Amino acid sequence: MIRRFACLIFLVTPLALAASFRQAQSLDTPAPDPLPSWNNGPAKKAIVDFVQAVTDKARPSFVPVAERIATFDNDGTLWVEQPMYTQVVFALDRVKALAAKHPDWHTKQPFKAILDGDRDTIAKFVKKDLGELILATHTGMTTQAFDAQAKSFLATAKHPRFKKLYTQCIYQPMLELMRFLRANDFKTYIVTGGSQQFVRSFSEEAYGIPPEQVIGSSPKLKYIKKDGGEPVMMRVHALLLLDDEDGKPEDIELFIGRKPLCAFGNSTGDRQMLEWTQSGGGTRLMMLVHHDDAEREYAYGAKSWIGTFSDSLMAEANKQGWTVISMKSDWKHIFPQGAR
Amino acid sequence: MIRRFACLIFLVTPLALAASFRQAQSLDTPAPDPLPSWNNGPAKKAIVDFVQAVTDKARPSFVPVAERIATFDNDGTLWVEQPMYTQVVFALDRVKALAAKHPDWHTKQPFKAILDGDRDTIAKFVKKDLGELILATHTGMTTQAFDAQAKSFLATAKHPRFKKLYTQCIYQPMLELMRFLRANDFKTYIVTGGSQQFVRSFSEEAYGIPPEQVIGSSPKLKYIKKDGGEPVMMRVHALLLLDDEDGKPEDIELFIGRKPLCAFGNSTGDRQMLEWTQSGGGTRLMMLVHHDDAEREYAYGAKSWIGTFSDSLMAEANKQGWTVISMKSDWKHIFPQGAR
Repeated sequence: MIRRFACLIFLVTPLALAASFRQAQSLDTPAPDPLPSWNNGPAKKAIVDFVQAVTDKARPSFVPVAERIATFDNDGTLWVEQPMYTQVVFALDRVKALAAKHPDWHTKQPFKAILDGDRDTIAKFVKKDLGELILATHTGMTTQAFDAQAKSFLATAKHPRFKKLYTQCIYQPMLELMRFLRANDFKTYIVTGGSQQFVRSFSEEAYGIPPEQVIGSSPKLKYIKKDGGEPVMMRVHALLLLDDEDGKPEDIELFIGRKPLCAFGNSTGDRQMLEWTQSGGGTRLMMLVHHDDAEREYAYGAKSWIGTFSDSLMAEANKQGWTVISMKSDWKHIFPQGAR
Repeated sequence: MIRRFACLIFLVTPLALAASFRQAQSLDTPAPDPLPSWNNGPAKKAIVDFVQAVTDKARPSFVPVAERIATFDNDGTLWVEQPMYTQVVFALDRVKALAAKHPDWHTKQPFKAILDGDRDTIAKFVKKDLGELILATHTGMTTQAFDAQAKSFLATAKHPRFKKLYTQCIYQPMLELMRFLRANDFKTYIVTGGSQQFVRSFSEEAYGIPPEQVIGSSPKLKYIKKDGGEPVMMRVHALLLLDDEDGKPEDIELFIGRKPLCAFGNSTGDRQMLEWTQSGGGTRLMMLVHHDDAEREYAYGAKSWIGTFSDSLMAEANKQGWTVISMKSDWKHIFPQGAR
């Protein structure tokens, strides 16, 4: 008993000393800004205020750790989506690689235009053409083979304007935001209209988000095990989940089973995710990245079918109190390493 | 600089003292057994050896934290599934509650048998009947309403033999196993053939597993938002995921995107999950709970269509080196609180 008491003194004293050390340190140097690439302004303030409100135990707005779910769109929210979704660039690349096995593609659209390098026709592709291209190039293989193909493409393909790997065309301010949220015990999820497995192939390295926290569009998967052989998982030529617009809250409910506490998007495809988040009530944060920076990135929005930011979305954002992030005025840097 | 150095001494000294305190403590009292309800034997040894092998950094079998995924079947693996799946008992309860709105049920099987209390017919129900009952009672409402119905049922309904709430008919040794794995930085998932949302309604409280770590069968979900109104999520009368047999590895790939490091089941419905786990190679743990304890719980297996443990499953377990847990000889206690 005496020995245990002596030990207790040893333990309590050091803990008190360690605490006073930490205090002394915090007087010497102020805590570093968790969002250094964000200019001071309403967007940065909205983030900091929100995190304080839900993590301060003394306030009625406090939210337990288990409910701190943050969901992020990917294309146009975490990385560049212009002049074309990266996944579509990958699909075009795969059409060329697979052409030898599909002689009919040389006479059949939308494949013919790609194989002929017919830019005029490619520029007129509509969503149906892209859907067909994506199913043709994203299915019919095992998930393991698809992962290798996606990684191989991303290891070398470069963005036509920025001349960098696509995985380097990610937004530094959003990386800081995700880290800040995780440091405050949020689980950060990607909820992408793009291919779930394509995004999983780089999300851990690029964003620090593990595969189980990537929700996205997916074909049906089929478990196949020949007698005595190793089982494989096939990607079947049929769509199971289209994770866009209504599909985003539907898949959030399917995968997570509770409403996000905050959600981040950039286009009409994210509208329902933000509505669903806000409907949870209490202190929530809904934000939209607005691409208004032609000089450092792109200025588009209502004009583009990629990442459409319609007038009605802007009207809803204003009415509902969603925060619109101006890339031009809210972000000090666009990409990592302060390169731009 | 001097001040900082002095602080450093304050910090280092207490840490060293705290470490020696912990050492002294560990000499005084051995670490408590993390699996006190497991008898010493091959099953317990397999668990402890596996956890040591994948968490010891000095060994080649070490596995990084991010890849420590553990998947558990629910019915018959984490809680009692005899004499009938709890979810089916819930469905029968709902048929009675909804009968007034469905006059045709009084003349239509399988509903009529339930409303008439016709035990002979109920005893002859096949899987198709159960599927029909489950779709009829588990869809057509919002996810919020379904959650309330499931919780209301589980708050009062008792197991016919054990006279306890169903959420108390959970296996104490498996609770200890899940806690032991989580203490070693595993993420524990449920992968259930039953309704994902039904299991989510009690998994956090009963097992410490949050909704986003429950994978299961699910109807299609539909996001509905009337103009200006609150959005709701409807459970639609159509099956999206049947999470049994092949569906288990398929949904593990869909939800998690990597192979489990260990998997636990009890029936032919879990066979593919264990095969998929083992195919990851290296040090993995595959276990099957064998219900061989008629006195304290039930003895069934090859005889019952609920939780079928066929001879071919036992042969595969023996051939593949999966560990079969004998409820009778491996478990000291069956239920929490040492009641049985």
